[in-house]
Amino acid sequence: MEFELIERIRARVVARADVVLGIGDDAAVLAVPPGRQLVVTTDTLNAGVHFPDDTAPSDIGWKALAVNLSDLAAMGAEPAWCTLSLSLPGQDAAWLDGFLDGFLALAARHGMALVGGDTTRGSLSVGVTVHGLVAPGRALRRDGAVVGDDVWVTGTLGDAAAGLRLLQHGGPAVVVACEAGPVLEAETDAGASALLRARLDRPEPRLAAGLGLVGVASSAIDVSDGLAADLGHVCRASGVGAEVRLAALPVSDALLQAFPGAERPALQAAGGDDYELCFTAPAAMRQRVETIGAEARTRVTRIGRVVAGGAVRLLDADGVEWQPARPGYEHFAD
Amino acid sequence: MEFELIERIRARVVARADVVLGIGDDAAVLAVPPGRQLVVTTDTLNAGVHFPDDTAPSDIGWKALAVNLSDLAAMGAEPAWCTLSLSLPGQDAAWLDGFLDGFLALAARHGMALVGGDTTRGSLSVGVTVHGLVAPGRALRRDGAVVGDDVWVTGTLGDAAAGLRLLQHGGPAVVVACEAGPVLEAETDAGASALLRARLDRPEPRLAAGLGLVGVASSAIDVSDGLAADLGHVCRASGVGAEVRLAALPVSDALLQAFPGAERPALQAAGGDDYELCFTAPAAMRQRVETIGAEARTRVTRIGRVVAGGAVRLLDADGVEWQPARPGYEHFAD
Repeated sequence: MEFELIERIRARVVARADVVLGIGDDAAVLAVPPGRQLVVTTDTLNAGVHFPDDTAPSDIGWKALAVNLSDLAAMGAEPAWCTLSLSLPGQDAAWLDGFLDGFLALAARHGMALVGGDTTRGSLSVGVTVHGLVAPGRALRRDGAVVGDDVWVTGTLGDAAAGLRLLQHGGPAVVVACEAGPVLEAETDAGASALLRARLDRPEPRLAAGLGLVGVASSAIDVSDGLAADLGHVCRASGVGAEVRLAALPVSDALLQAFPGAERPALQAAGGDDYELCFTAPAAMRQRVETIGAEARTRVTRIGRVVAGGAVRLLDADGVEWQPARPGYEHFAD
Repeated sequence: MEFELIERIRARVVARADVVLGIGDDAAVLAVPPGRQLVVTTDTLNAGVHFPDDTAPSDIGWKALAVNLSDLAAMGAEPAWCTLSLSLPGQDAAWLDGFLDGFLALAARHGMALVGGDTTRGSLSVGVTVHGLVAPGRALRRDGAVVGDDVWVTGTLGDAAAGLRLLQHGGPAVVVACEAGPVLEAETDAGASALLRARLDRPEPRLAAGLGLVGVASSAIDVSDGLAADLGHVCRASGVGAEVRLAALPVSDALLQAFPGAERPALQAAGGDDYELCFTAPAAMRQRVETIGAEARTRVTRIGRVVAGGAVRLLDADGVEWQPARPGYEHFAD
């Protein structure tokens, strides 16, 4: 009963004055404010590929919207409207209610209206298209990085990948030896585990930071495939290279606790699913970037610089290039 | 290798002057013309649910865009941009090329630019979001039908459902007796079969007719779930009823040839997948509607009228109400 599902969704949707016609016709009609350009992106999450099969419905709802909002954040766009395409193996009102709890909580937090969509029968899959607004010519892009710029990142890196690793393997895969001596393998603290899992399931799109960076950052991307891969996209689009100091990558206490050893750099540099912003900005903007981070209540960390060439080089404490075992998360790579 | 698939897509996309930033960044940036409202709709097609498993890749591409364009047609919107979300069981460049042949041929025909999307691993599923443009307040809606209006439909009805039936059963399910005597069961002519299958696989969105009907039709919807169900949506939204004469439903020669008997009315009134427009217009507009049809090179047929009440009544030649066995196509009904 597709109609019942749609009614269930429609009953919970928040209004926006610029929604001329919302859910319930052949299409939505939306009034784009004068002097604004439209920013559009779409991302689909499939069960077992983009989230673990045991993920709670509310977390699936949250994440499906969050990964799309993260793209708007990386463009410096203000969220406006979204559509939802839901494939479900069967009808399950309780599942749908849980899903909407997560989806609509995040939408409400960012003033975004759900204006349309469809529900179909199929394996569990959630497709979301989001619409944001920017002033003409002001969107943050991937192709503006300039040699000499700083490379920055919001939040902390590697937490989501660590959360997935813990879920799949229950802890660090190997006991490692540090220069300071062997590290004892300890059970990962339940609090740290829960925090890392929450970072996997409920990424926080960095919209306030992205909006603040308009006119300040020279380029931006969101980190979904892993820092090295995504910074690589910026370098390719901008025709530059980048050097990143591994020791500078921001790390959460939970990640430090759960992965104290040599596995951590790979999680941070190539883990994926971070949904943090990686951006470049002129060195003259350092103080300004710090202020934007503080105003957005978002940690910002300078991790490297833009150089000539085309490659992303990750440098260890001795300035020696470090190679991740895995260059990035690619959905079609088996 | 998601990047390779995306490059394969990007290489074939047609430009539009209002696409500020297309495929290849975190999101597309689009310039909505001043004085136009945005019309947005999304529809996902899953293999085995929305198209037969043996459907050719180019037909899947065509249909995935066509069903979305059909919604724009029903709003009287002019097509502008679309995004594509493709879940594929594995990487298959030949499949993708075929898919793009159909998808991009239809996009080019209607001047629509593909501006973004994603490819993921999963069971075969195609999600499309389309964007169109309308003058403020001019979109065709479901809620404007008025008692006394005529009910119209474009094209012919029942062909796609007949195409599916032939595919599943190889011909009319039963030999039926007419008042004029028993009908001989004959092999369906190969040409008629192919034509009906083409109507299933390659629906023709009625964009020119929809655009022409702006300011003329009082309501419109596209027929995807079957005429009775979709006209029911219009009646519910408008707070009216409708009477439709079964004998007036436009029928193709191929359908007449393949289903000469009593099965035909159900295919026409409740078959679904027609992607024709059903619309209402004041009786004073009859000549105008005929002209719009002629200019759009689209058959238009007056099939009934809007009445008081809330129900859709299908009337046989004697004015007796006819009940379809199946009230409409619902994806979640098993």
